[in-house]
Parts: sequence; structure tokens; C-alpha cells
Amino acid sequence: MIQVAVMGHGVVGSGVTEILLNNSAEIAKRVRDEIYIKKVLDLREFPDSPIADRFTKDFSEIEDDDEIKIVVEVMGGVEPAYTFVKSCLLKGKSVVTSNKELVAKKGAELLKIANERNLNFLFEASVGGGIPIIRPLNQCLAANNVEEIDGILNGTTNFILTKMIEDSMSFEDALKLAQDLGYAERNPAADVEGHDACRKICILASMIFGKHVYPDGVHTEGITKVTLDDVGYAQSWGGVIKLIGSVKQNGGKHQILVAPMFVPNTNQLSSVDDVFNAILVKGDYTGDVVFYGKGAGKLPTASAVVADVMDCVTNLDRRRNIFWEDSKNESVMPFEDTMYSMFVRAYAVDKTDLDKRVSGVFGECSFIEKDNAPENEIAFVTPLMKYSDFDKACRTFEKDGFRVLSSIRIADF
Amino acid sequence: MIQVAVMGHGVVGSGVTEILLNNSAEIAKRVRDEIYIKKVLDLREFPDSPIADRFTKDFSEIEDDDEIKIVVEVMGGVEPAYTFVKSCLLKGKSVVTSNKELVAKKGAELLKIANERNLNFLFEASVGGGIPIIRPLNQCLAANNVEEIDGILNGTTNFILTKMIEDSMSFEDALKLAQDLGYAERNPAADVEGHDACRKICILASMIFGKHVYPDGVHTEGITKVTLDDVGYAQSWGGVIKLIGSVKQNGGKHQILVAPMFVPNTNQLSSVDDVFNAILVKGDYTGDVVFYGKGAGKLPTASAVVADVMDCVTNLDRRRNIFWEDSKNESVMPFEDTMYSMFVRAYAVDKTDLDKRVSGVFGECSFIEKDNAPENEIAFVTPLMKYSDFDKACRTFEKDGFRVLSSIRIADF
Repeated sequence: MIQVAVMGHGVVGSGVTEILLNNSAEIAKRVRDEIYIKKVLDLREFPDSPIADRFTKDFSEIEDDDEIKIVVEVMGGVEPAYTFVKSCLLKGKSVVTSNKELVAKKGAELLKIANERNLNFLFEASVGGGIPIIRPLNQCLAANNVEEIDGILNGTTNFILTKMIEDSMSFEDALKLAQDLGYAERNPAADVEGHDACRKICILASMIFGKHVYPDGVHTEGITKVTLDDVGYAQSWGGVIKLIGSVKQNGGKHQILVAPMFVPNTNQLSSVDDVFNAILVKGDYTGDVVFYGKGAGKLPTASAVVADVMDCVTNLDRRRNIFWEDSKNESVMPFEDTMYSMFVRAYAVDKTDLDKRVSGVFGECSFIEKDNAPENEIAFVTPLMKYSDFDKACRTFEKDGFRVLSSIRIADF
Repeated sequence: MIQVAVMGHGVVGSGVTEILLNNSAEIAKRVRDEIYIKKVLDLREFPDSPIADRFTKDFSEIEDDDEIKIVVEVMGGVEPAYTFVKSCLLKGKSVVTSNKELVAKKGAELLKIANERNLNFLFEASVGGGIPIIRPLNQCLAANNVEEIDGILNGTTNFILTKMIEDSMSFEDALKLAQDLGYAERNPAADVEGHDACRKICILASMIFGKHVYPDGVHTEGITKVTLDDVGYAQSWGGVIKLIGSVKQNGGKHQILVAPMFVPNTNQLSSVDDVFNAILVKGDYTGDVVFYGKGAGKLPTASAVVADVMDCVTNLDRRRNIFWEDSKNESVMPFEDTMYSMFVRAYAVDKTDLDKRVSGVFGECSFIEKDNAPENEIAFVTPLMKYSDFDKACRTFEKDGFRVLSSIRIADF
């Protein structure tokens, strides 16, 4: 019998105990051992839980219990999760977590402690919810150099964008609907500002480069500035707007960012709608591989956590080969150097010599027309440009009497 | 140092040696040991190979070499692969294979031998080429009941169907193009008749049910009868024709078959084009998860083989948890009992009272119109029917002066 503790009894945590209890016979058969939930840590009371007597509010009851070999952390947030997880590892317990913020901000340190003690620190559920991605990526990495990852990593923003695209709903209305349906938090900043997607692309980037990429150094744009006009121009251009987390090698540096992008309809990611996530992995041998599914939700995420627990049980005495070194984000390409073609929507006081004036500033551009566009609005796609050059060009452009209303990257994957 | 042998130096085999030789330092770092190719078995001569001196035509040089701990089988076909693999396992060597025919026909027996000897018998590359599917599926299975799998499992037929759909190319012309491009063999039967897809769905079915499903007992239709008319009707209906391998639980039995199906444009599998494969896995907790990528090709497939070899190296003394029992296909639902809505295209001598005559035989049907349809052609979709009832209905229908020209299942996933 293997004794485990679950820290946190919220959405994911209650799903984890539910699966471990309801499927205990099946699980025992697969791992050839019984998994027993000895403690559940939560500050709230759950008198109706079938294991109400095993709840505790006191972390030391887990930390100091040498019989507990595996601890599940599903509390979310950096503190107290970080302190608790670190203590558990230092006490010789393997840890499974779904906490992307913890892994994105403290992964290198926690992996190092686990490594030194031959323990497992697993986090399949931290990216893509129930979609297997961390372990398959590790498998891809076994015989491939993974050169690039691009993903729709946040279900809430993808739901909002889908409603804007398919039902011409405004951002505000779509956000409200997402909140009413329980897809978005009352305070939606972590989702709509791109922070959640940023944590996930940082975890994936850390894996493929073997060096920690910290979210603080990664340029992150959300979807709050995306308008129905932009959505309409994307459609005329032959694509859709998606919030993309992207990382790739570029001249010895890692180009990594989170931003809305124009994705052409011919790309597999363009048809990923609603709360679904999809992650495109480009390996030098495998070519393009895409993993698709629900990126969040109680049971999908909990089932990924349970799969990690089972992996820990069958590998109690050996560490899985997941590791990256610490870094100071020194390999992250400065945002100003990142290269994209840009979609530009602008207000033009007068349109005399438009083509010449635009190309004079941005280089050869292709214009996009849209039905019902305001008379003084223009839209075009620039050539591939360094962000610093683009930014400079925008300022020159505005001195010539234009006003840039939006600028959105064109996906290049 | 771990010594391995590679049996077969064809497309995949030469890719395996290429990756193992070119990436040896990277691989050694990841598995913390050096992988050395001691022997390559092939009846042909390869004097230009950098390891020409390690080639042999004599299997006993591998079988009897106790230093060789892992053997890669990439010869294809059942014999002599089966005899060689079995001998290797009996001699205590772990085996990695990309040979779907071998796994589909002999998997239970070989897994049993491996199991009894605490050896690994791994076959990630046998399904989906470079797409990680066997290991992620095993991970899904850890905490889920996988209730259904539907997949586009054969790249050659998907390429042919894509050309028929997008370029209105006839089956014959598309097949010829596939052959000219090297996607299809000179004798294309294994692909176009569905046998290759059948072997793959049998492997996946065996995994999720824990019991071997043999290809012989699985109804298999290829794409040779699909016409451009059918493709056109599918378009009018709002979808595309794809060759689908499907398996699911249905009333205590396993409904499994390979057949062309109408897939609606709203389904993720509808946009999987050209030589790409995609596998939809439905878990009770994860919901729908899709794995997408190139299902064949030298380097994608070889990289999956190498990943398995690396897994063997890091688990030389412990068996991965992949296993199914032998069976006599007793749980496979008889083909006559499988349930689908059917698309029917028929020739009608006269169209008097058409609606009544069709619904009198098949039940409430919805008719499909298509531009440029021959005057006497009709097309409709039946309600959900058992195949035996559908077959009977077709005979009644033909007695009433109709001639059934094609019948194609409607995807229900």
C-alpha cells in the first residue's frame, strides 16, 4: 500500500480524490499496489466527503508523516504551495502538481531538489489539462531536437475569441458569457491578459531547451485589445485570430512570446475552437505533431494528476528523466529583436498616395479590404520585421497623419 | 555501454541507424549510457554505410550474442520477423519494433513472453509513425477508461481521398500520383483495401480492452469503391469522406471496423489532409483528445523507434506497463450487429412516390441533393440501423426497382 496526501480540495483536488476513490480497484491493478489517501489538506470543512475524517488544516501532519511517500499539490498559486512542495521534497516525498504558476516560477529549483534526492516531481496537468503533453514531449525529445512549439494554451481566451469570430460577439459580451458559464474567473486577468498561457509556454520552453525560462522575461499580450474589426480583417485575409504561445530557436537565442496572432485557415490550429487547446510541436525528425483536447476542467485535469501519481508509484525508487537547469533568462531573445509580419489597422486622415506612403515606411505591404470598413480605415500586412523596426516605423507613420488602431502578429508556423 | 542490433536496413531501419549514429552524444546524455549498434541484419550489401563492417546476413550472430541486450526489428511482415523476435525475447533481449503486422497478429504471444521474462517489447512506431500515441494512450489509460478510438490511420489513403476531394481527381489518378510520389507501393492493396489501417486499429483496440483483437475478425473496407459522386454528395451533406478505423464499447461487445465514412466538417478529423494521420481518443475523464502528425516516413517513424530503444535502455531491468491477454476475438461484435446511419446513393428507374418508398424500406431518411447529379440518381441518409437490417432493406429496395450504387457509413464520433 502506498500512502499519499492531497494538498487542496478545490476543483482539481476534489476530482483527484474522486478518481482515486472511485477507480481504486482498476488503479491498484495497473500499478500493482493500493493507493491510499491518508490526508487531505484544506482550510475549509468538507463534512460530507466520504473521507471527511482524513482532512486536516495542518500541513505538518503531512510533512512529518514518513509513511506518506507521494504528495499531490493542487492548491494553485506560488505560496504556500512552494513552501509546502519544497518541504515535502526535502523530506523525501515525491510530488505531483497541476500548478503551472509554481512550475513556471520555481520549477528549476524544485527539479534540482528532486533530482538530488532521486525523487519525482511531475506536472503533466500543468499544461494542457487532460491532454498528455509533458510526457509525449519528453518522448519526442528523446530522439528529436524540438525546434519550435506553438500552442493555443488557454481555453478561456479561446472560447472568447471563438464567440467573437463565430457569433460576432464583442469581447466584453463574450467575456461575460464565459464568466456565466464558469469558464472565466470573476477576475479574468490571468486568462485574458495572457499570463496563464505565458506560464505554460515557459514550462514547455524550459523542457525543450533544458534551461528554465521565467515568465517575467517573456513578452505577453492578452486579447483585451482585439476588436471585431480585427476579427473581420482576419477573415478577409483568410484566417482567424488566436492567442498563441510560441517558442523557437532563432539565431542562438530563444524567441518566446504570448500574443494574439492571425492564423491562416489552412493551419491545424485555426480550427481549434471553444475551450479546446492544441499544442503544435515541431521536431527535426517527427515533423509537425499536434496534441488536441480540453485544456482545463475538473476531471480531465484530475485524471492527468492521477496518471502522474500512478507513474510515481511504479517509479518510487527512480527518477523520471524530466529536468532543466536554472537560468537567468539569458538565452531569451530581447522582445525588440523578435521578427514577425504584422497586420496593421490604421485611421488615415487622407488616402492620397496611400500605397507609396505605406510602403515607404514599412516596405512592400499587402492591403486587406473588408466589407463595411469605416471610410477612413486602412489595413495591411507588413513584411517580416524586427519589432524595434516596426515600432519605429509606426511612429514615422503616425507623423504622416495616420493613427495605428491595432497591430497583430501574423503566425509563421 | 548498451549493445543493440538492428534487424532490417530498409527505409525505417536505415533511419534508425542514422539517428543513433548522428545523435549519439545527445542520446547518451539523455539515457546516461552509450548506445552501440553492434550488428545490422540485412540480406543486401551496404558497402557505403559508415558501419558496413557490422552488417551480417546471419541471424544467429545476433541471437547468440549475449552482449546484445536490445534488438530493433524493422523488417516488416510476419515472417521471418516473428521467428526472429520470439527467439530474441526467449534469449532475454528486449525488442523494439515498428512492424504493425507483427504486433497485430502476434502481439499477445510476444507480450506474454516479454512479461514472463521481465523484458520490454515496445512498438510505439507501429501506429501513427512519429506521432506519440502508444505511450500517451497508456498514460490516458492509467486514470481513464478509454471508451472509443477513431482514427485516420493510413496516410496513403488519406492522400488519395484528399486529392479526390480537393482536386476532383479520380481514385485511379490519385493512386497513380501517390505511387509517383512514393507514398503508395506498386502493389497498393495493403493500403487501399484498408488492411494497414485494420492492423493499427487492432493494436489500439487490444491496448484499451486488455485483450488481443485479431485483424482477421475485423470487418475491413478500403476506399477502392469510393467515387467522385460520393465525394460530391459528402460535400453537399457538409463533410468529407475519410477512411476511419473505429473501435468502441457497445453493449458489452467491441464494435470495431475499418471503412470509409462521411465525417462532418465540424469534426476535428475532417481537416486532416494529405499524408497526415490523426487519432481521436475518448476517455471517460479526459474527454476527446486528438493526436495529429505524419503517420509514416523514414525519419518520423525511425525517431519513434529510437525513443523506444532509449526507453528500453533506461528500463533494462523493469518492464513497461504495456500488456494485453490473448483472445479468440470473442468480444468482437459480429459485423452484422454494428450500428450506423448509412449514406445511400442509388439509381431509380422511376421516382414516383420516392419519399414514401424510401422511408417505407429504411425508415425516415433525409435526402441529399447535388449539382450535376444524373437524372435518375438519388441519395439519402438512413436512420441508425443494424448492418443486417440495412442489408435486408437494400435487398427489398432493389426489388422495388432501385439499384444501390454505394453505401457509406456516417461517422458517429
